[in-house]
Amino acid sequence: MPLGAAAIAAEVERLIAAGRAAALALFASDRQSRQRFVHKTAALLTEQAQNLVQANARDLAANPNLSSALRDRLRLDADRISAMARDTAAVAELPEVVGAIVGRQTMPNGLVVERQRVPLGLIAIIYEARPNVTIDAAVLSVLAGNAVILRGGSEAAHSNQALVEILRQALQFAALPPDAVQIPTTRDRGLVDALVGRPGGVDLAIPRGGTALIEAVTRAARVPVIQHYQGVCHLYVDGSADLAMATRIAVNAKAQRPGVCNAMEALLIDAAIADRAVPVLAQALHQAGVQVRGCPRTLARAAATAIAATDADYGREFLDLQCLCAVVDGLEGAMDHIRRYGSHHTEAIVASDPAIADAFVRGVDASCVAINASTRLNDGSCLGLGAEIGISTTKLHAYGPMGLEALTAVRFVARGQGQVRT
Amino acid sequence: MPLGAAAIAAEVERLIAAGRAAALALFASDRQSRQRFVHKTAALLTEQAQNLVQANARDLAANPNLSSALRDRLRLDADRISAMARDTAAVAELPEVVGAIVGRQTMPNGLVVERQRVPLGLIAIIYEARPNVTIDAAVLSVLAGNAVILRGGSEAAHSNQALVEILRQALQFAALPPDAVQIPTTRDRGLVDALVGRPGGVDLAIPRGGTALIEAVTRAARVPVIQHYQGVCHLYVDGSADLAMATRIAVNAKAQRPGVCNAMEALLIDAAIADRAVPVLAQALHQAGVQVRGCPRTLARAAATAIAATDADYGREFLDLQCLCAVVDGLEGAMDHIRRYGSHHTEAIVASDPAIADAFVRGVDASCVAINASTRLNDGSCLGLGAEIGISTTKLHAYGPMGLEALTAVRFVARGQGQVRT
Repeated sequence: MPLGAAAIAAEVERLIAAGRAAALALFASDRQSRQRFVHKTAALLTEQAQNLVQANARDLAANPNLSSALRDRLRLDADRISAMARDTAAVAELPEVVGAIVGRQTMPNGLVVERQRVPLGLIAIIYEARPNVTIDAAVLSVLAGNAVILRGGSEAAHSNQALVEILRQALQFAALPPDAVQIPTTRDRGLVDALVGRPGGVDLAIPRGGTALIEAVTRAARVPVIQHYQGVCHLYVDGSADLAMATRIAVNAKAQRPGVCNAMEALLIDAAIADRAVPVLAQALHQAGVQVRGCPRTLARAAATAIAATDADYGREFLDLQCLCAVVDGLEGAMDHIRRYGSHHTEAIVASDPAIADAFVRGVDASCVAINASTRLNDGSCLGLGAEIGISTTKLHAYGPMGLEALTAVRFVARGQGQVRT
Repeated sequence: MPLGAAAIAAEVERLIAAGRAAALALFASDRQSRQRFVHKTAALLTEQAQNLVQANARDLAANPNLSSALRDRLRLDADRISAMARDTAAVAELPEVVGAIVGRQTMPNGLVVERQRVPLGLIAIIYEARPNVTIDAAVLSVLAGNAVILRGGSEAAHSNQALVEILRQALQFAALPPDAVQIPTTRDRGLVDALVGRPGGVDLAIPRGGTALIEAVTRAARVPVIQHYQGVCHLYVDGSADLAMATRIAVNAKAQRPGVCNAMEALLIDAAIADRAVPVLAQALHQAGVQVRGCPRTLARAAATAIAATDADYGREFLDLQCLCAVVDGLEGAMDHIRRYGSHHTEAIVASDPAIADAFVRGVDASCVAINASTRLNDGSCLGLGAEIGISTTKLHAYGPMGLEALTAVRFVARGQGQVRT
């Protein structure tokens, strides 16, 4: 039975009051305590691996009708738990962001102006089935001095409950407030709307998941939202490309892990080299198990390895071993295509002419533009952030992978000797 | 007669389509063109000063019932126009932000990862009576490579129309699309809601003005919003303070320009020095024309220069020659007061003990924390930004004065030699 509005409102106020009190304590916390929390989380994951597998088994049993891909995302086993523990321990050693000075200048009147990173405050993260997000999101948020309210998918309810218990034990061990990591006591659907719809409640809401989830959160929100939207990522193979390199990158970008947001969804080939490049690229993708959906100019050159694309395949996020392949008229044709169908996530070019590559970078608006590299490299670890909480397609605040820095605000600190405004 | 929903929706689609096309052209525009636009704007302000004064006179005549403070904010005269022209010309020489590389690292696989500033895209700015905001907002936005839709206050309608004509002439002169600066063709109240409520429409909405305006925009928005909220700014005079410095700063913070968001609204005095400090500070404020509203411990020491504060005076943004004065129990008492009543805008301390000052900085969450300096220095020019579009109290993306950098996004550019994900 759904809760009444009053009960939901009461739960939201409880979460926010407890979360804000925890955020206040974390704001001035020392690095040692936050690191101790992260290391203890890693240790408890290992110690309590068997409990976690059992909790996860209850989730798997309670959701017998999930697709095999979703079951795989949901599953926790000993190997995955030990990888989580290892990754978590590594996060503790990332450079400190809280209090970091990112700029300093002395004004003519002697005022010393610093730009300093401080925690954001209280963050709500709303996500879907993968339980490892629970650990990543909580550990990164707290290490950056924030409190979090986590709302994971219902399929992972038991796993997430067990993981949050570990996180709260680790907070207590580190003498930090356990309410720095909270999960709502109800799974009522109205709770998310009420939580993100409370003005002045959380400082940031981060929805991670399918388009419907992100749109629902954005619609309900009266607080800032950073969206982690879909990736309709293109790879443009220019006339100046090294074709062997382009082939390696195209196969990696599509087939290495097709179900993720930085996988290539459309391959664009310069008409100038179509006769040579289309057969080679289509064949390589076909051999990697990819269904190539070609435009007419592609089909004319790769009839055996491609099928005809429909209108719906343009701008489509396949998330599977399928992709569009279109012949375009050079750089301008590629950029026109990307402006029309891209989603500002990841756009890549293979070109050996640096002037072409530079023009592509200048003309394409995406969170990551890759030159002679796979779209799959738009990821926190590959781009040097160490760990990430997701890939933002919102341009404000964070654009691309969100690491520890993106979980802080940058304020001004003005150090004077009596300066006034004249 | 208000427009129908269909007519408003059509106007919104027209503004967004034209704005996005202009933003696309600006995304890849060169610095010279954008500078030429700014310089031409400055020149046209001077050339067309008389027209501007006439347009402004129509606004003043059409709004006879404004308070004298609002009339003053609305007024354009020859001096103000020449100051606008001078400030505008100075903005053109600020360092280029578009394309600026703000970080670079080479990964172990040889991938060179750059963080690069790019324009945000299309920005909607919704503001109240001061016409100079029209020029500041447009010039800074376009110089950072963005297109803007400006919705100023109805009181300034004629002035803003004349200013936007200058801006569009200057865009044409610089061979940039005139639709980089647009104003809606209707002043229907439904337009703002429809504009900011259009998902995927503008990349950012910035409301500047009173709390009601900001809350209305935030409520309607389905796009990111950066709020420029009120400033309930405190000055804490610690027991270790130089009392002469504290007095100078308190008078400047409150009385130099009382009607602005970075003016001091509450003076907090350490109980340890209350006997000595309260009479001196209350007397100095009183002499500067400030009505001091004191807590009981203040009144006991400054009966002649203070009146009794009411509950409503705590956390109040007076925006006038009035302020709260409260005696607090040391640093902790001051920080408790600020956490309860502050608005995350500007918080200042006067202290000669650096340990106290550091603890204040660590414990207080505000867009600008000032040590031994006036709250009035939380301003783009005083903090080294050169110019600002307002002072953000949103922690996301920009916290404090928003200059050119805050009008850009930071993306990743990954330069490879064939790197793939393994």
